[in-house]
Amino acid sequence: MKKNVLKIALSTLFTASVVWAQAQIAEDFKPSVMNQPGQEYPMVNSQGYARFKILAPAADSVKVSLGLGGRGGTRLKKNADGYWEGTTEGPMDEGFHYYNVNIDGGKFNDPGAKNYYGSIRWESGIEIPAKDQDFYALKNVPHGHVQQVLFPSPSTGTSRRAFVYTPPGYEKGKQKYPVLYLQHGWGEDETAWMNQGHANLIMDNLIAEGKIKPFIIVNTYGMTNEVKFGKIREFDIKPFQTVLVDELVPYVDSHFRTIATREKRAMAGLSMGGMETKTITLNKPEVFGSFGLLSGGTYAPADFKDKIKPLYIHLSCGSKERPDGIRKATEELKAAGFNADGYISEGTAHEFLSWRRALYQMAQKLFK
Amino acid sequence: MKKNVLKIALSTLFTASVVWAQAQIAEDFKPSVMNQPGQEYPMVNSQGYARFKILAPAADSVKVSLGLGGRGGTRLKKNADGYWEGTTEGPMDEGFHYYNVNIDGGKFNDPGAKNYYGSIRWESGIEIPAKDQDFYALKNVPHGHVQQVLFPSPSTGTSRRAFVYTPPGYEKGKQKYPVLYLQHGWGEDETAWMNQGHANLIMDNLIAEGKIKPFIIVNTYGMTNEVKFGKIREFDIKPFQTVLVDELVPYVDSHFRTIATREKRAMAGLSMGGMETKTITLNKPEVFGSFGLLSGGTYAPADFKDKIKPLYIHLSCGSKERPDGIRKATEELKAAGFNADGYISEGTAHEFLSWRRALYQMAQKLFK
Repeated sequence: MKKNVLKIALSTLFTASVVWAQAQIAEDFKPSVMNQPGQEYPMVNSQGYARFKILAPAADSVKVSLGLGGRGGTRLKKNADGYWEGTTEGPMDEGFHYYNVNIDGGKFNDPGAKNYYGSIRWESGIEIPAKDQDFYALKNVPHGHVQQVLFPSPSTGTSRRAFVYTPPGYEKGKQKYPVLYLQHGWGEDETAWMNQGHANLIMDNLIAEGKIKPFIIVNTYGMTNEVKFGKIREFDIKPFQTVLVDELVPYVDSHFRTIATREKRAMAGLSMGGMETKTITLNKPEVFGSFGLLSGGTYAPADFKDKIKPLYIHLSCGSKERPDGIRKATEELKAAGFNADGYISEGTAHEFLSWRRALYQMAQKLFK
Repeated sequence: MKKNVLKIALSTLFTASVVWAQAQIAEDFKPSVMNQPGQEYPMVNSQGYARFKILAPAADSVKVSLGLGGRGGTRLKKNADGYWEGTTEGPMDEGFHYYNVNIDGGKFNDPGAKNYYGSIRWESGIEIPAKDQDFYALKNVPHGHVQQVLFPSPSTGTSRRAFVYTPPGYEKGKQKYPVLYLQHGWGEDETAWMNQGHANLIMDNLIAEGKIKPFIIVNTYGMTNEVKFGKIREFDIKPFQTVLVDELVPYVDSHFRTIATREKRAMAGLSMGGMETKTITLNKPEVFGSFGLLSGGTYAPADFKDKIKPLYIHLSCGSKERPDGIRKATEELKAAGFNADGYISEGTAHEFLSWRRALYQMAQKLFK
């Protein structure tokens, strides 16, 4: 009897909370800023709910991979006009999310959204406006250029692609600049930091506000996707280390006005790019002087035994990841006399808003 | 009776030709070079047939928009494993094609292919290797950089994007360069010429072979897609002319080492970009000295009445378009004393191989 009462109470509570949640959805949906030109859907409201609308009149099932964590995405319902429509069960985290659409068992992209390389495929992207979005907004300030370069890579027998951010005014002066080599994560490629990361806009805004002295950023493909996600420990760093240290760094130093010293050359990476950063910086401390791991692990004082001390270490992650690990590692580094910062991005998980914010923080500490 | 005999004869002939065609498909299919990393399909064989394979186990109908002209694309058939598979009825034209996939009445992209902006959407792309593909291949030669710039545009109240190709060695010297402003067509944007057009590789190869003196190429969005395809005559050139002539040209001249004279500044465009080129060059002959219309109309001697004479005119199209119009217009221009060339791309239609080849030809004649 008691059991049944409890059951009824829970069921009422559940129903009530669903009704409450649905009643509370603000009908102020606007097209996501990452939509294709002229596309209304997907839309996002002021609370962070996402709404999808996709045409597939003869389909039996349309499901969006995006939804509340672990609840398996959002099932869309078919309207009379052949469009499938649906809203996430709850608000999404602020920032950028990859997603895809399952149409009758196949994985496709939302025709309304632009595509971003993640999960070893060009995925759909959506942006939930963040309260602090101003720091990565496109503003009326001088803009740096993002250069696609094809650098010779004898070790891999081809020309490889990198993107190089040169700060505003680069083309007019004779000044030389420090360089940050900044890596993407597993499933992504060299397009990630400038496309979904807005690294160029973050730099433009920091420079315009006088918060940093300008530096160059370089992104290239970390060869991370040659390994399956579950087997990341089997990843061999050597081929990428050769490309980065022996091929790309010399290309950048000979084609751009860089300060080609360890002190003015940093390496950082997000997620698996952090793992690469840790390995390469410890293998090549004479090449890189400052290090950043963004949701990508930690350094311990013992890592630097018998090695040159780094000038600066940035550790960070989202508050929904494992912030305690970052805090603890930072304390240990500081206690051992290292110049280290631990940054926690509030309210975000293992996603790009954490990394945009981390770049914003880290950029203000590098090359001092 | 005679009628029936004829019917049977025709029907036999038709069946025979289908059998013949099918028997002749060379089973040497390879992944298209425009596939996403690691993706096997779509594939292309040595004859130019394309084969598609797409997972959608519960779908009722999967159709690829690509196929023999006017025959409505290629219907795929479902295999036991849930993959839909099919091969084009015949060989496709050499070069690049946009396409999309209809899944149960909705328009999606092929998850195997990379996406290219055309038809006012990011479309799937496939490449049928051309016999002359060497001229746009990625080779072991010095490569120029492709710079994404965000230039201030007071007339449209935002920063607008352009891509600027700077030739190999640009960053090392003090040399100044001529500039070609090169426009995309309707449905496309500023990414077209460098992505699917391979304009940067065409230039790298021409320069490496000593066939041209280096120059800069600039692509920006021609605002062409604000008008519906059938209503192109309603397009107002003024807003784009202002962006191009009053905002982009000054930005390029002040941020790059250009020779900022009419003689060393050219404008060309494909399809609707040709229409824009014709209008703007005739409106602003003091700004641009050489003109190119690629599958984008013609000039007549009368167009230049009371105007400065252009230094060079390039007219071109594919042999499957209206080559006679190009030939006739070129003859008339030449007869009237103009320095003009008419180029016909053999075996191609209103597609990007025509325009890659046209750029290759035109580049060798500009800025002499």
